[in-house]
Amino acid sequence: MRCGQGIEARQVDELFINIDPIQAGGRLTADAMKAVVAYGDGYSVCDNCRKPNRLDYIAKPPIAEFHKDVAKWLNMDAVRTVPGARRGFQAVAHTYVNKGDPVLLTSLSHYTEFLAVEESGGVAREIPANDQKLVTPDATAEKIEAVKREFGRAPVLAFIDHVDYQYGNMHDVAGIAKVCRQYDVPIVYNGAYTVGILPVDGKAMGVDFVVGSGHKSMAAPAPSGVLAATAEREKEVFRTTAIIGDVTNRKFGIKEPEMMGCTLMGVTLVGMMASFPHVKERTKHFDKELANHKIVMDALLSIEGTKCLSEFPRKHTMTRIDTIASFDKVAESHKKRGYYLQSALEEKGITGVIPGATKVWKFNTYGTTRKQAEHLGRAFVEIARENGLAVKG
Amino acid sequence: MRCGQGIEARQVDELFINIDPIQAGGRLTADAMKAVVAYGDGYSVCDNCRKPNRLDYIAKPPIAEFHKDVAKWLNMDAVRTVPGARRGFQAVAHTYVNKGDPVLLTSLSHYTEFLAVEESGGVAREIPANDQKLVTPDATAEKIEAVKREFGRAPVLAFIDHVDYQYGNMHDVAGIAKVCRQYDVPIVYNGAYTVGILPVDGKAMGVDFVVGSGHKSMAAPAPSGVLAATAEREKEVFRTTAIIGDVTNRKFGIKEPEMMGCTLMGVTLVGMMASFPHVKERTKHFDKELANHKIVMDALLSIEGTKCLSEFPRKHTMTRIDTIASFDKVAESHKKRGYYLQSALEEKGITGVIPGATKVWKFNTYGTTRKQAEHLGRAFVEIARENGLAVKG
Repeated sequence: MRCGQGIEARQVDELFINIDPIQAGGRLTADAMKAVVAYGDGYSVCDNCRKPNRLDYIAKPPIAEFHKDVAKWLNMDAVRTVPGARRGFQAVAHTYVNKGDPVLLTSLSHYTEFLAVEESGGVAREIPANDQKLVTPDATAEKIEAVKREFGRAPVLAFIDHVDYQYGNMHDVAGIAKVCRQYDVPIVYNGAYTVGILPVDGKAMGVDFVVGSGHKSMAAPAPSGVLAATAEREKEVFRTTAIIGDVTNRKFGIKEPEMMGCTLMGVTLVGMMASFPHVKERTKHFDKELANHKIVMDALLSIEGTKCLSEFPRKHTMTRIDTIASFDKVAESHKKRGYYLQSALEEKGITGVIPGATKVWKFNTYGTTRKQAEHLGRAFVEIARENGLAVKG
Repeated sequence: MRCGQGIEARQVDELFINIDPIQAGGRLTADAMKAVVAYGDGYSVCDNCRKPNRLDYIAKPPIAEFHKDVAKWLNMDAVRTVPGARRGFQAVAHTYVNKGDPVLLTSLSHYTEFLAVEESGGVAREIPANDQKLVTPDATAEKIEAVKREFGRAPVLAFIDHVDYQYGNMHDVAGIAKVCRQYDVPIVYNGAYTVGILPVDGKAMGVDFVVGSGHKSMAAPAPSGVLAATAEREKEVFRTTAIIGDVTNRKFGIKEPEMMGCTLMGVTLVGMMASFPHVKERTKHFDKELANHKIVMDALLSIEGTKCLSEFPRKHTMTRIDTIASFDKVAESHKKRGYYLQSALEEKGITGVIPGATKVWKFNTYGTTRKQAEHLGRAFVEIARENGLAVKG
């Protein structure tokens, strides 16, 4: 089935339980699906744009209300939508980082945070994670002191991932933010794996910015995301334009340079809005997600030789697993080599594990039902047994 | 009909002939509609991402091929997709503009070009349009000389709109580019109203960059667009990342900082790809679009007192019209005041004129059939006659 010349219609989540580490939280809700059909055209949300002519003021569809709701939900003072979390990082980096300025990241930071620093001319300095792959407040203080010695001043900005993309570990953002505040370092909370997944309270954590990803964790089409700020920081990052045309003396109203004017329109915005009530609700039931994740983890860890590389017990549904001493041993002699695992999983209606991966890999059970989680657990154990691996219990 | 809590399903192009000036070229094709359903999830295009792990290398769906096709189609050497034309402007501005640098715009430039300059710390200098609202090569040379006197150096970059958003006038980009080259000023061709609408040949015009808007003129969902570069400029704007983690020594492969890594995913990209064969084809028949536009213009200009503020004869289907001495006279005494025009048009199945506008307004007939164009022309004349305005012929 095709949806355009040479483009096969994708049928993945329709046919499989998808445990891809980055896709689980971004699957569209049914309402978002309807919204992308109804608001497919880019300027479809602009039909009722009135003065002061900025996207986040539009009342119909209820875009203005959505912005207020998201700010309240994150317990922050102002929100803008952005074309992906990375564009939120970029906007903040441009506001605070000048050429040669040190910026605090961590040894587990996502590459888009590095690119935001690079594009602003900043210098990246990573807070090292400890042996448990956790970034701590103490390590943050040590790194800030090291930066001060090296640069003669504190970092101008810090990006901290609440749950990192490498291990899915949950870091003590509140503790880290407290340290940052002592040194007057503005802190960006990267919620790519949390905003839309579990409850996030920006003020309680004491962060200056909260960034969320629409297509990673808010069941919205790509590219989409949110950038939330405190009242203090709002004036800085969401400052309005000051440029003037020298011939026409034109000014550009209340458009915001770091947002490049109006932000998300059409499918991306309305998709995010349509999913929002469902997303808000699901964050209240993250305990259920963790319980389902545990079913799969227990099954995986019952296969002898399998190790969990993420913190344990798990605080997130995205986990890094080491199967060098289990599934990978099979790959050595299997006629399909490392591809046997993915192949066997697909036969059982499961997808999302990188083809060929049998050593160290990640998966995410977010959004699975209990029944699906049980199927996942059983599937891993069955594949292990079928291939002669020992299973405990 | 709702497509989510509090969100009315939009039915505009389904029910009306839509002559909104900025919506005409962005209406999704049927293939794009199918694509947004099949590729609704953000990471849906990443299922088959393999090394070197960058979006524009993905073969299935045929993203890599699409990038090559678009470059060839625009007669440029390299293309990237961007979340809206403005993000293309931003990437180029960041590459060439430092704090205090003069940048050439025009008195008809779009606000997003100004914001790109502002966000990079540049200073905007507008080439004045002449009395015919056209930006000329001579005026460009004069302005560059003026900038040299003022700043002691030539502008570091020029943004030129081939067809401007204010009048829909077509400016002599080839002539302007020739002048820019004489002063070594890199030139960005803003094709927001041309790429996807009429044939565009970057090399023939001698420009360094071509920017197109997916949701304005390529029948793609928002935010989407393309940034094309010559081989010389490609190395500058699409340079790869050089930042390194100081603790982990991490590098980030061939990701590009100005693109913030991978660019468009899911609906926006696949929507643009699905529409592309249709868009390519339609640009070959722009003469038909102009012929239909003429039908409407002839009708409008037959209403006494109506003036065309855009260049005439028209070279584009988006036109600025002055009805102060025609439709606006009716508004003075009509019980619906200025809203009567929009109201009367909607009764005839036409939408897209700003509610209340009867003085100076814009419309775009792009994509209408001959029959629809005739209906539009008849509708304007009938409304004029019904309201006692004189109609010639």
